[in-house]
Amino acid sequence: MSDPEITLARNYQVGAAGRLALDTLPLTGSCTTFAVQEGHPTLPEYVADSASTATAWATGMKTSNGRLSTAPGSDRDLKTILEIAQAKGFRAGLVTTADLTDATPAALASHVNSRECRGPSEMAECPKRKKSAGGKGSIAEQEVDHQVDVLLGGGKARFDQVLDGGPHVGKTVIQSARAQGYAVVTDAAGLRAARPGAKLLGLFASGNMSLEWGGEPALTYPGSGPQRCRQGIRPANEPSLAEMTKKAIEWLGAGGGGRGRGFFLQVEGGSIDKRGHASNPCEQIGETIAFDDAVRVSLDYARSHPDTLVVVTGDHAHTSQIVSPPDAKDHSPGALSTLVTSEGAKMIVNYATNLPGRSQDHTGAQVWIAAQGPQAANVAGVTDQTDLFHTLARALGAE
Amino acid sequence: MSDPEITLARNYQVGAAGRLALDTLPLTGSCTTFAVQEGHPTLPEYVADSASTATAWATGMKTSNGRLSTAPGSDRDLKTILEIAQAKGFRAGLVTTADLTDATPAALASHVNSRECRGPSEMAECPKRKKSAGGKGSIAEQEVDHQVDVLLGGGKARFDQVLDGGPHVGKTVIQSARAQGYAVVTDAAGLRAARPGAKLLGLFASGNMSLEWGGEPALTYPGSGPQRCRQGIRPANEPSLAEMTKKAIEWLGAGGGGRGRGFFLQVEGGSIDKRGHASNPCEQIGETIAFDDAVRVSLDYARSHPDTLVVVTGDHAHTSQIVSPPDAKDHSPGALSTLVTSEGAKMIVNYATNLPGRSQDHTGAQVWIAAQGPQAANVAGVTDQTDLFHTLARALGAE
Repeated sequence: MSDPEITLARNYQVGAAGRLALDTLPLTGSCTTFAVQEGHPTLPEYVADSASTATAWATGMKTSNGRLSTAPGSDRDLKTILEIAQAKGFRAGLVTTADLTDATPAALASHVNSRECRGPSEMAECPKRKKSAGGKGSIAEQEVDHQVDVLLGGGKARFDQVLDGGPHVGKTVIQSARAQGYAVVTDAAGLRAARPGAKLLGLFASGNMSLEWGGEPALTYPGSGPQRCRQGIRPANEPSLAEMTKKAIEWLGAGGGGRGRGFFLQVEGGSIDKRGHASNPCEQIGETIAFDDAVRVSLDYARSHPDTLVVVTGDHAHTSQIVSPPDAKDHSPGALSTLVTSEGAKMIVNYATNLPGRSQDHTGAQVWIAAQGPQAANVAGVTDQTDLFHTLARALGAE
Repeated sequence: MSDPEITLARNYQVGAAGRLALDTLPLTGSCTTFAVQEGHPTLPEYVADSASTATAWATGMKTSNGRLSTAPGSDRDLKTILEIAQAKGFRAGLVTTADLTDATPAALASHVNSRECRGPSEMAECPKRKKSAGGKGSIAEQEVDHQVDVLLGGGKARFDQVLDGGPHVGKTVIQSARAQGYAVVTDAAGLRAARPGAKLLGLFASGNMSLEWGGEPALTYPGSGPQRCRQGIRPANEPSLAEMTKKAIEWLGAGGGGRGRGFFLQVEGGSIDKRGHASNPCEQIGETIAFDDAVRVSLDYARSHPDTLVVVTGDHAHTSQIVSPPDAKDHSPGALSTLVTSEGAKMIVNYATNLPGRSQDHTGAQVWIAAQGPQAANVAGVTDQTDLFHTLARALGAE
């Protein structure tokens, strides 16, 4: 997510002159997102994926696309900011609308050579990492074994897989989590009822969580629409990202015991990217607004806890563009959709980084980053995602 | 110009981890660029042109696409920041690599209902503005009549047109300028020889000035390249944007007489946009680097004159995107080119807001803005281009 996705959501929901919650963060900058090449780690890969980019702010190190908190070439584990926070006595949480084993949460609490190694039955690309081979196991196993205090998102199918080694061999990842003191919830009611205490694992969908809004995908000229998006289509048994964020903050902020120093929490609007890949503007905007609602929850907390650093950014730039009204002579060769915004104007969205109907591509532009609170001024100007690691480390008192 | 164009230029010329001069400005933000609809000025037009956007920071008011410092609907003249600066005793300059009557300089020193009304023979869309009809005349006439101290760029063909009214009727715009005290130069040697004194009009090309770099345009899959750009192809008789900027600062900074308070100078890299429209990555990047060289000149001046506000931004977002290596199954339906960057990696550029071979489209995303010096902190966070007017006015002591 970067400028185009933010502008699309703002224009659609609050108008071009309106302001989202994420627009209110006072300090802003541009962040470079490039990866490095696996075979030549001194050479850049200008278009990054979500694994290398999350690794950058998780560890302060560049890696190649597909890797999670491991070094290119050497496959060495790279220490993450979540691990550093835990070692300093902070509690930790990961929240996403995607599968909890997706790249963004995974980079904070696992070390694997391939983002595909999500559960113990999906280790084809990471044979040495298997528990039966003496490794740390799949992403799902490592997230639980990391004792992350709050894990909320989708991806239950990964956590239902059975461990092939270690002390909990033969148990599912969920059973292993329970054995390690996790409370496990699987729907919105369960989340609401959960009272801060032990560690919390919430798995609200088999894969990615359900979408907030619906609408027609973009199509070749003249494109879909004019359309208004169908809002509020998320099933009631799944919590919103804002609800998960609120619960995570409540849980982590309650502190207690020796780990009451404060917390590190990463919240991802995981399907902004996914619905961009799918060329669906309403779905993409709905997820952006849901993410913005979660930002608002974090800003509300920061208002009464001014020692809180809040950073909002995207992991890489993406495909969507706002373009002029097309006509027969002049139109994108990609997929278009005309939306009628809340202020009653037509907005045309273009998806053209891949052939219409194919998964659209990430892009390599520097991305928007915004922050408030301690160390927030570090995001101003041009920085790299690896610099964000140090900003977070300083806010935690670890540098 | 915004994040994609800046990232393309950085990656190509100094590497993904390198820094351009414009990257060094300490305070950065996002700027919204939407226009309004001529028939319904309360409704937005989400994709703006260079006339409405320059009007926004020139006057603090939104207008419709195509208008220059006039109000939508009413056609009322809107006072510009250049006029305010002059009234406060500041000297003023406009520098561009485009035609001097192009929208960006024109919005600062003219008021017309259409950006097409560039010279006295091109007034078909502005009949009431003609000097023979008692109006202020074309853009070229108004720029000169505004007594702008330094005017440097292309567009000599407009200034060779003959006035149809007013005290200089029958004279060309250049002759009218001379009669009003302008020194006129038409090549790099003339510019170099010019010594600060009276007003200076430099017209270095018939239309837009020549380009800095050359290369193959982007083409449909598999696209052009891999290519290295041909640098340094500008003819020696035309000055660079950096040379024009240096001379303008020298001229304006010399002050003297009653107008020695300081100066307002706008410098435009006018062909970054134009070569984006043309789907030519080398030409686009060459113009971006030339603009960056001009930014460096301004920062050098500001270093010894710390009471200088420097603001760098683009007037609207544009078409170019950095994408992944294409293959037969997955590739943009638009025009692609593979560049080999200075650090020896392949960078793929995509132009797909219009059909290949057609003029590519502006886009509607918020744009990058950066600043240093007095009032620079106003660019942080999310602002609109109309806010930039007030930032400039405050720096001039006019608000």
